[in-house]
Amino acid sequence: MDPDGVAKAFVEHYYRTFDSNRAGLVGLYQEGSMLSFEGEKFMGAAAISAKLTSLPFDKCLHKVVTVDCQPAGPTGGVLVFVSGSLQAGEGEHQIKFSQMFHLMPVGPGNFYVQNDMFRLNYG
Amino acid sequence: MDPDGVAKAFVEHYYRTFDSNRAGLVGLYQEGSMLSFEGEKFMGAAAISAKLTSLPFDKCLHKVVTVDCQPAGPTGGVLVFVSGSLQAGEGEHQIKFSQMFHLMPVGPGNFYVQNDMFRLNYG
Repeated sequence: MDPDGVAKAFVEHYYRTFDSNRAGLVGLYQEGSMLSFEGEKFMGAAAISAKLTSLPFDKCLHKVVTVDCQPAGPTGGVLVFVSGSLQAGEGEHQIKFSQMFHLMPVGPGNFYVQNDMFRLNYG
Repeated sequence: MDPDGVAKAFVEHYYRTFDSNRAGLVGLYQEGSMLSFEGEKFMGAAAISAKLTSLPFDKCLHKVVTVDCQPAGPTGGVLVFVSGSLQAGEGEHQIKFSQMFHLMPVGPGNFYVQNDMFRLNYG
Protein backbone atom coordinates (compact mmCIF):
# COMPACT_ATOMS: atom_id res chain seq x y z
CA MET A 1 0.00 0.00 0.00
CA ASP A 2 1.21 3.49 -0.84
CA PRO A 3 -0.17 5.86 1.84
CA ASP A 4 0.56 8.96 -0.26
CA GLY A 5 -1.36 7.57 -3.21
CA VAL A 6 -4.27 6.53 -0.99
CA ALA A 7 -4.36 9.96 0.67
CA LYS A 8 -4.21 11.88 -2.60
CA ALA A 9 -6.97 9.84 -4.23
CA PHE A 10 -9.15 10.01 -1.11
CA VAL A 11 -8.78 13.78 -0.69
CA GLU A 12 -9.64 14.46 -4.32
CA HIS A 13 -12.68 12.18 -4.13
CA TYR A 14 -13.89 13.45 -0.76
CA TYR A 15 -13.90 17.18 -1.52
CA ARG A 16 -15.14 16.76 -5.09
CA THR A 17 -18.08 14.74 -3.72
CA PHE A 18 -18.64 17.20 -0.85
CA ASP A 19 -18.81 20.12 -3.27
CA SER A 20 -20.96 18.43 -5.94
CA ASN A 21 -23.14 15.80 -4.22
CA ARG A 22 -22.81 15.88 -0.45
CA ALA A 23 -25.27 12.99 0.02
CA GLY A 24 -22.81 10.78 -1.85
CA LEU A 25 -20.37 10.93 1.06
CA VAL A 26 -22.46 8.45 3.05
CA GLY A 27 -20.79 5.51 1.36
CA LEU A 28 -17.40 6.51 2.77
CA TYR A 29 -18.53 5.93 6.37
CA GLN A 30 -19.58 2.81 8.30
CA GLU A 31 -21.55 2.04 11.48
CA GLY A 32 -18.60 2.69 13.78
CA SER A 33 -17.37 5.81 11.99
CA MET A 34 -17.03 9.01 14.00
CA LEU A 35 -17.25 12.65 12.97
CA SER A 36 -16.33 15.67 15.09
CA PHE A 37 -17.61 18.73 13.25
CA GLU A 38 -16.74 22.03 14.90
CA GLY A 39 -16.81 20.19 18.24
CA GLU A 40 -20.13 18.38 17.67
CA LYS A 41 -19.86 14.58 17.65
CA PHE A 42 -21.69 12.15 15.38
CA MET A 43 -21.40 8.36 15.10
CA GLY A 44 -22.39 6.07 12.24
CA ALA A 45 -22.81 6.69 8.53
CA ALA A 46 -26.48 7.75 8.83
CA ALA A 47 -25.91 10.37 11.54
CA ILE A 48 -22.79 11.69 9.82
CA SER A 49 -24.53 11.98 6.46
CA ALA A 50 -27.54 13.67 8.10
CA LYS A 51 -25.21 16.29 9.59
CA LEU A 52 -23.27 16.91 6.38
CA THR A 53 -26.36 17.17 4.18
CA SER A 54 -28.12 19.54 6.63
CA LEU A 55 -25.35 22.15 6.68
CA PRO A 56 -26.99 25.51 5.94
CA PHE A 57 -25.57 26.12 2.47
CA ASP A 58 -26.01 24.48 -0.91
CA LYS A 59 -22.92 25.57 -2.76
CA CYS A 60 -19.53 24.84 -1.28
CA LEU A 61 -16.06 25.01 -2.75
CA HIS A 62 -13.05 23.53 -0.95
CA LYS A 63 -9.55 24.56 -1.95
CA VAL A 64 -7.03 22.09 -0.56
CA VAL A 65 -3.64 23.64 0.23
CA THR A 66 -1.71 20.86 2.05
CA VAL A 67 -2.18 17.10 2.36
CA ASP A 68 -0.01 15.12 4.77
CA CYS A 69 -0.34 11.42 5.44
CA GLN A 70 1.23 8.66 7.50
CA PRO A 71 0.51 4.96 7.99
CA ALA A 72 -1.50 4.71 11.22
CA GLY A 73 0.27 1.61 12.54
CA PRO A 74 -0.14 -2.16 12.30
CA THR A 75 -3.87 -2.05 11.44
CA GLY A 76 -3.17 -0.92 7.87
CA GLY A 77 -4.92 2.37 8.38
CA VAL A 78 -3.83 5.68 6.91
CA LEU A 79 -3.95 9.07 8.63
CA VAL A 80 -4.65 12.03 6.36
CA PHE A 81 -4.25 15.63 7.50
CA VAL A 82 -5.60 18.41 5.28
CA SER A 83 -5.48 22.18 5.41
CA GLY A 84 -7.08 24.61 3.03
CA SER A 85 -9.85 27.12 2.62
CA LEU A 86 -13.51 26.89 1.74
CA GLN A 87 -16.24 29.13 0.45
CA ALA A 88 -19.74 28.15 1.63
CA GLY A 89 -22.75 29.72 -0.01
CA GLU A 90 -22.90 32.55 -2.55
CA GLY A 91 -20.41 35.40 -2.37
CA GLU A 92 -19.07 34.44 1.02
CA HIS A 93 -15.50 34.91 2.16
CA GLN A 94 -13.01 32.09 2.09
CA ILE A 95 -12.51 30.54 5.51
CA LYS A 96 -9.49 28.44 6.42
CA PHE A 97 -10.13 24.91 7.60
CA SER A 98 -8.21 21.87 8.72
CA GLN A 99 -9.44 18.30 8.79
CA MET A 100 -8.07 14.89 9.62
CA PHE A 101 -9.22 11.45 8.52
CA HIS A 102 -8.33 7.99 9.73
CA LEU A 103 -8.91 5.66 6.80
CA MET A 104 -9.25 1.93 7.49
CA PRO A 105 -8.87 -0.77 4.84
CA VAL A 106 -11.86 -2.82 3.69
CA GLY A 107 -10.32 -5.08 1.09
CA PRO A 108 -7.55 -4.39 -1.41
CA GLY A 109 -7.36 -0.73 -2.34
CA ASN A 110 -10.60 0.14 -0.55
CA PHE A 111 -10.89 2.29 2.57
CA TYR A 112 -13.63 3.73 4.74
CA VAL A 113 -13.44 6.71 7.09
CA GLN A 114 -13.16 5.49 10.69
CA ASN A 115 -12.40 8.95 12.14
CA ASP A 116 -13.10 12.43 10.77
CA MET A 117 -12.40 15.67 12.64
CA PHE A 118 -13.10 19.06 11.10
CA ARG A 119 -12.43 22.60 12.30
CA LEU A 120 -12.66 26.04 10.78
CA ASN A 121 -9.70 28.31 11.56
CA TYR A 122 -11.28 31.73 11.75
CA GLY A 123 -8.91 34.48 10.63
CA MET B 1 -10.07 4.83 29.21
CA ASP B 2 -11.51 8.33 28.81
CA PRO B 3 -10.24 9.71 25.47
CA ASP B 4 -11.18 13.29 26.38
CA GLY B 5 -9.20 13.10 29.62
CA VAL B 6 -6.21 11.55 27.86
CA ALA B 7 -6.30 14.20 25.12
CA LYS B 8 -6.61 17.12 27.54
CA ALA B 9 -3.75 15.91 29.74
CA PHE B 10 -1.56 15.14 26.74
CA VAL B 11 -2.13 18.50 25.05
CA GLU B 12 -1.34 20.44 28.23
CA HIS B 13 1.82 18.41 28.80
CA TYR B 14 2.97 18.53 25.18
CA TYR B 15 2.77 22.28 24.63
CA ARG B 16 4.00 23.18 28.11
CA THR B 17 7.07 20.99 27.47
CA PHE B 18 7.51 22.35 23.93
CA ASP B 19 7.50 25.93 25.20
CA SER B 20 9.71 25.39 28.27
CA ASN B 21 12.04 22.45 27.53
CA ARG B 22 11.75 21.23 23.96
CA ALA B 23 14.39 18.50 24.48
CA GLY B 24 12.04 16.93 27.01
CA LEU B 25 9.62 15.94 24.24
CA VAL B 26 11.90 13.05 23.18
CA GLY B 27 10.36 10.75 25.81
CA LEU B 28 6.94 11.02 24.16
CA TYR B 29 8.14 9.32 20.96
CA GLN B 30 9.40 5.79 20.23
CA GLU B 31 11.43 4.10 17.49
CA GLY B 32 8.47 3.75 15.13
CA SER B 33 7.05 7.22 15.76
CA MET B 34 6.54 9.51 12.78
CA LEU B 35 6.53 13.29 12.50
CA SER B 36 5.46 15.35 9.49
CA PHE B 37 6.54 18.92 10.17
CA GLU B 38 5.49 21.40 7.50
CA GLY B 39 5.70 18.54 5.01
CA GLU B 40 9.12 17.24 6.10
CA LYS B 41 9.08 13.66 7.42
CA PHE B 42 11.03 12.26 10.37
CA MET B 43 10.96 8.78 11.92
CA GLY B 44 12.02 7.67 15.38
CA ALA B 45 12.39 9.55 18.66
CA ALA B 46 15.99 10.64 17.98
CA ALA B 47 15.30 12.15 14.54
CA ILE B 48 12.09 13.79 15.73
CA SER B 49 13.77 15.31 18.76
CA ALA B 50 16.69 16.52 16.62
CA LYS B 51 14.23 18.35 14.36
CA LEU B 52 12.22 19.89 17.18
CA THR B 53 15.28 21.07 19.12
CA SER B 54 16.91 22.55 16.01
CA LEU B 55 14.00 24.83 15.09
CA PRO B 56 15.42 28.34 14.61
CA PHE B 57 13.92 30.00 17.69
CA ASP B 58 14.44 29.65 21.43
CA LYS B 59 11.27 31.11 22.83
CA CYS B 60 7.94 29.72 21.73
CA LEU B 61 4.45 30.18 23.08
CA HIS B 62 1.56 28.00 21.93
CA LYS B 63 -2.01 29.10 22.54
CA VAL B 64 -4.37 26.15 22.11
CA VAL B 65 -7.84 27.14 20.88
CA THR B 66 -9.57 23.80 20.14
CA VAL B 67 -8.86 20.19 21.12
CA ASP B 68 -10.91 17.39 19.56
CA CYS B 69 -10.35 13.70 20.18
CA GLN B 70 -11.73 10.32 19.21
CA PRO B 71 -10.79 6.71 19.98
CA ALA B 72 -8.75 5.51 17.00
CA GLY B 73 -10.30 2.04 16.84
CA PRO B 74 -9.68 -1.39 18.35
CA THR B 75 -5.98 -0.76 19.08
CA GLY B 76 -6.78 1.46 22.06
CA GLY B 77 -5.20 4.49 20.45
CA VAL B 78 -6.51 8.02 20.71
CA LEU B 79 -6.58 10.63 17.94
CA VAL B 80 -6.07 14.22 19.06
CA PHE B 81 -6.67 17.18 16.77
CA VAL B 82 -5.52 20.63 17.89
CA SER B 83 -5.86 24.13 16.49
CA GLY B 84 -4.43 27.31 17.89
CA SER B 85 -1.82 29.97 17.37
CA LEU B 86 1.84 30.26 18.23
CA GLN B 87 4.42 32.95 18.64
CA ALA B 88 7.98 31.83 17.85
CA GLY B 89 10.89 34.06 18.83
CA GLU B 90 10.85 37.59 20.21
CA GLY B 91 8.18 40.04 19.09
CA GLU B 92 6.93 37.92 16.26
CA HIS B 93 3.35 37.76 15.06
CA GLN B 94 1.04 34.98 16.14
CA ILE B 95 0.66 32.33 13.46
CA LYS B 96 -2.22 29.89 13.35
CA PHE B 97 -1.34 26.20 13.45
CA SER B 98 -3.08 22.87 13.46
CA GLN B 99 -1.64 19.56 14.59
CA MET B 100 -2.80 16.00 14.98
CA PHE B 101 -1.46 13.22 17.18
CA HIS B 102 -2.13 9.50 17.23
CA LEU B 103 -1.44 8.34 20.77
CA MET B 104 -0.87 4.64 21.39
CA PRO B 105 -1.11 2.97 24.80
CA VAL B 106 1.99 1.61 26.56
CA GLY B 107 0.55 0.31 29.79
CA PRO B 108 -2.29 1.64 31.93
CA GLY B 109 -2.72 5.38 31.53
CA ASN B 110 0.49 5.77 29.52
CA PHE B 111 0.69 6.73 25.89
CA TYR B 112 3.36 7.52 23.33
CA VAL B 113 3.03 9.50 20.10
CA GLN B 114 2.86 7.11 17.13
CA ASN B 115 1.90 9.82 14.61
CA ASP B 116 2.38 13.59 14.69
CA MET B 117 1.51 15.95 11.83
CA PHE B 118 1.99 19.70 12.12
CA ARG B 119 1.13 22.58 9.80
CA LEU B 120 1.14 26.33 10.04
CA ASN B 121 -1.95 28.01 8.56
CA TYR B 122 -0.56 31.25 7.20
CA GLY B 123 -3.07 34.09 7.39
